[in-house]
Amino acid sequence: QSSVTLYGLVDAYVGTSKVKVSVPGASSSLRQSVVDSGGINTSRFGFKGSEDLGGGLKANFVLEGGFKADTGATDPTGGYTNPYTGVVSSSTFSRNSWVGLSGGFGEVKLGKMWTPYDEVKGLGAAAFDANIFAPATNVWLSNNYQANPGNAIYYSTPSFSGFSAAGMYSFGENKAPGVDAGKIMSANVQYANGPIAVALAHQVEKASGAVGSTKFTQLNGSYDLGAAKLLAAVGHVKDGSDKSKEFQVGVDVPLGAVTVSGGVARAKLTGPGGELKSTGFGLAAKYDLSKRTFLYTGLQLSKNEVVGAGDIKTDTFAVGVQHKF
Amino acid sequence: QSSVTLYGLVDAYVGTSKVKVSVPGASSSLRQSVVDSGGINTSRFGFKGSEDLGGGLKANFVLEGGFKADTGATDPTGGYTNPYTGVVSSSTFSRNSWVGLSGGFGEVKLGKMWTPYDEVKGLGAAAFDANIFAPATNVWLSNNYQANPGNAIYYSTPSFSGFSAAGMYSFGENKAPGVDAGKIMSANVQYANGPIAVALAHQVEKASGAVGSTKFTQLNGSYDLGAAKLLAAVGHVKDGSDKSKEFQVGVDVPLGAVTVSGGVARAKLTGPGGELKSTGFGLAAKYDLSKRTFLYTGLQLSKNEVVGAGDIKTDTFAVGVQHKF
Amino acid sequence: QSSVTLYGLVDAYVGTSKVKVSVPGASSSLRQSVVDSGGINTSRFGFKGSEDLGGGLKANFVLEGGFKADTGATDPTGGYTNPYTGVVSSSTFSRNSWVGLSGGFGEVKLGKMWTPYDEVKGLGAAAFDANIFAPATNVWLSNNYQANPGNAIYYSTPSFSGFSAAGMYSFGENKAPGVDAGKIMSANVQYANGPIAVALAHQVEKASGAVGSTKFTQLNGSYDLGAAKLLAAVGHVKDGSDKSKEFQVGVDVPLGAVTVSGGVARAKLTGPGGELKSTGFGLAAKYDLSKRTFLYTGLQLSKNEVVGAGDIKTDTFAVGVQHKF
Repeated sequence: QSSVTLYGLVDAYVGTSKVKVSVPGASSSLRQSVVDSGGINTSRFGFKGSEDLGGGLKANFVLEGGFKADTGATDPTGGYTNPYTGVVSSSTFSRNSWVGLSGGFGEVKLGKMWTPYDEVKGLGAAAFDANIFAPATNVWLSNNYQANPGNAIYYSTPSFSGFSAAGMYSFGENKAPGVDAGKIMSANVQYANGPIAVALAHQVEKASGAVGSTKFTQLNGSYDLGAAKLLAAVGHVKDGSDKSKEFQVGVDVPLGAVTVSGGVARAKLTGPGGELKSTGFGLAAKYDLSKRTFLYTGLQLSKNEVVGAGDIKTDTFAVGVQHKF
Repeated sequence: QSSVTLYGLVDAYVGTSKVKVSVPGASSSLRQSVVDSGGINTSRFGFKGSEDLGGGLKANFVLEGGFKADTGATDPTGGYTNPYTGVVSSSTFSRNSWVGLSGGFGEVKLGKMWTPYDEVKGLGAAAFDANIFAPATNVWLSNNYQANPGNAIYYSTPSFSGFSAAGMYSFGENKAPGVDAGKIMSANVQYANGPIAVALAHQVEKASGAVGSTKFTQLNGSYDLGAAKLLAAVGHVKDGSDKSKEFQVGVDVPLGAVTVSGGVARAKLTGPGGELKSTGFGLAAKYDLSKRTFLYTGLQLSKNEVVGAGDIKTDTFAVGVQHKF
Repeated sequence: QSSVTLYGLVDAYVGTSKVKVSVPGASSSLRQSVVDSGGINTSRFGFKGSEDLGGGLKANFVLEGGFKADTGATDPTGGYTNPYTGVVSSSTFSRNSWVGLSGGFGEVKLGKMWTPYDEVKGLGAAAFDANIFAPATNVWLSNNYQANPGNAIYYSTPSFSGFSAAGMYSFGENKAPGVDAGKIMSANVQYANGPIAVALAHQVEKASGAVGSTKFTQLNGSYDLGAAKLLAAVGHVKDGSDKSKEFQVGVDVPLGAVTVSGGVARAKLTGPGGELKSTGFGLAAKYDLSKRTFLYTGLQLSKNEVVGAGDIKTDTFAVGVQHKF
């Protein structure tokens, strides 16, 4: 009589990473070896279900929490941080916590879910969009968006000839006398048909009482040639006077049970504080032991150069295992 | 071979509420719009089971945690606060955490469970005893009791011709040299037969080393006429020199898939600090999409008047969805 | 299609314990009555699974959190404390959180698991190695080891004619310029054949940048005579100039549905700060209501004497119930 599925993913790896700071008068280099969690995807567990209400209508829910496979700690380790007030509380379902209805009209969700911007951001990402291997790791500024702010209402359309769209509004719930509440708005438009997938996404984040807002825009695409899948993404972030332009190209190559993926990413931030040029390279391989389990390895290199003031270089290498249940 | 049921409830709504303070020299008014959790019932998940030990004896357990459907945060968001020491810890099962035995003798539970006072408090409550719509919300002082203090042993009798009773004792576990430990005692007597349900409940809360205690008493009843169910409750709270008298009347009206419920609540607190008069009105409707899922809407108005010193008025309106799994 | 088992254990008791301090000028005595969790074993819930990958290879995972059955709080109540940095975070799976592979080669785990030292420490323990009844409770210094430090890679051999072994390495991940990271290494060798079981275990804990380390060694054994099972353990702890020698003997006596177990433990710590002599006595009985549920009772007495400076005596008595699911 239970109507819920318990599911999850455990991803752990052994790795080593070096951070080398080359700043005149303050250079350093440190290599750390670790057993850590979420090399490819964040470790998680969840409860989900879908009830048929008749006439194509369904009631749906997802409750999903993240955790660190290496320590058992809640992920994010600090618990839930309210994106509007900064207040921290312990978090039961840090990733998803929503209930909603779906049908011919599309889908409505209430609660905490991924923003439409986040939903399509990885579509053109190389190295499996892996947390530690993706070319854009440590490179793109657009990684600093609110991926699931909560307090939100979400709507996605059905697919029309491969086209679909989604929108979300998150309430800051922090209005004060004379001061507007904060808010986050996010939307995407997608097209998927045969070998082609393209998605455009936009997200606006406005703090309580703020004059301006931070705006994220990204276009992701992929084209599947069969022997290889081409990946590309371009993005833009505007935060006050700071502007960042970003791109990434890559390729997935399936070789039987093994899939190899790699790419390069670049970003250029210009603003009153100067210019920041960033470059990243990521390469990773998966070896499928089954549909639910794979071994992986990969490396990622990044360089962040504050023009005229030195740079920071990182390298990461790891081998790991991921298991879904 | 698993012998446990995973269950829960996700309740989320879009709502708006206004707090209007009319105090000479310090008046204000603020309306907040939100996506929030638990409009009708607190969102929760749990594990429970019952093992047949033969001869009518059963071993039972319930482990249940609350969460905020809008943010995924643990509910209560501050985690578990020890009711005797005030110490806060992160909480895995904030609502129920007990193991026990049941049989012809009744039921015994050890751990953290609802007090007998809490068990019957909502029996006569209108507007589905909803967190945000019940007439007594923001009105009754008797809402400030310890609903599940933990450190407890609980016993309930079997039903004898419709009569049953329950008692609970919670250990403060905070004895110090020369200072007694705190304690919470709670008991109820219930009668349910055909259209009639009546329950009397009493709870005493004593802090460590305190001279006096806080005493809660409540009588709840309902009478089902078929076309409508009449609801009534009267209560009393004594906390030192402060005394509060409370009542509430209401009615549930079933109309096919829709049920409408409404009522009014009043409270009068008298004490050395003056007199506080409170009134509340709540009205709500459920629309069943299935046995497990319903849409709801409702409103609640409250007024708290410190006699001779102004008042605070609130209004709340919301629409939401609840899904059980 | 779900491939995960939800399991756990709820253990709660009513008990009373006294701490009597007999130190010249600072004597005291205090008895506390409680409803508490984990009299025999720590209350826990978990998700686990094993996937057959063919050729004898399996992918395995365990995610397991502890909780206090009396309050629903996370256990340990402070959440997860990083053993190297002392940083505390909220903990989803405080006991186990690992993924790995097993096969003819043995088993490899990545993440947070019990150390090989911990795995065999209870083999020779009397009074069911119960949290509150074991003779060594409040007696052995070797109870203060890191039982599951996380950040770890673990390997155990298959069994060869009853012999097996395991090793674990945990990364401190806290290297700083010029300062090595901390580390914990743990290993065991076991022999189990017919009535005989013997295990030798060793664990070394080294803090970041520390010159020395803390070393734990323990030999545990049991011999099953049928009518009774003999239990014995000897241990040694070296922490800088402090050395502790420990032993324990006991016996399990099965009497149908009832099992009685008892024993005595001693420890002697010598170091620059003087000499500490400790003695403990534990006796407990289980009454099986089923394979998954039992009632229990027991008592434990301990005495810790700082030679020439007084002593602390404790006594604990409790009755409880444990249910597995």
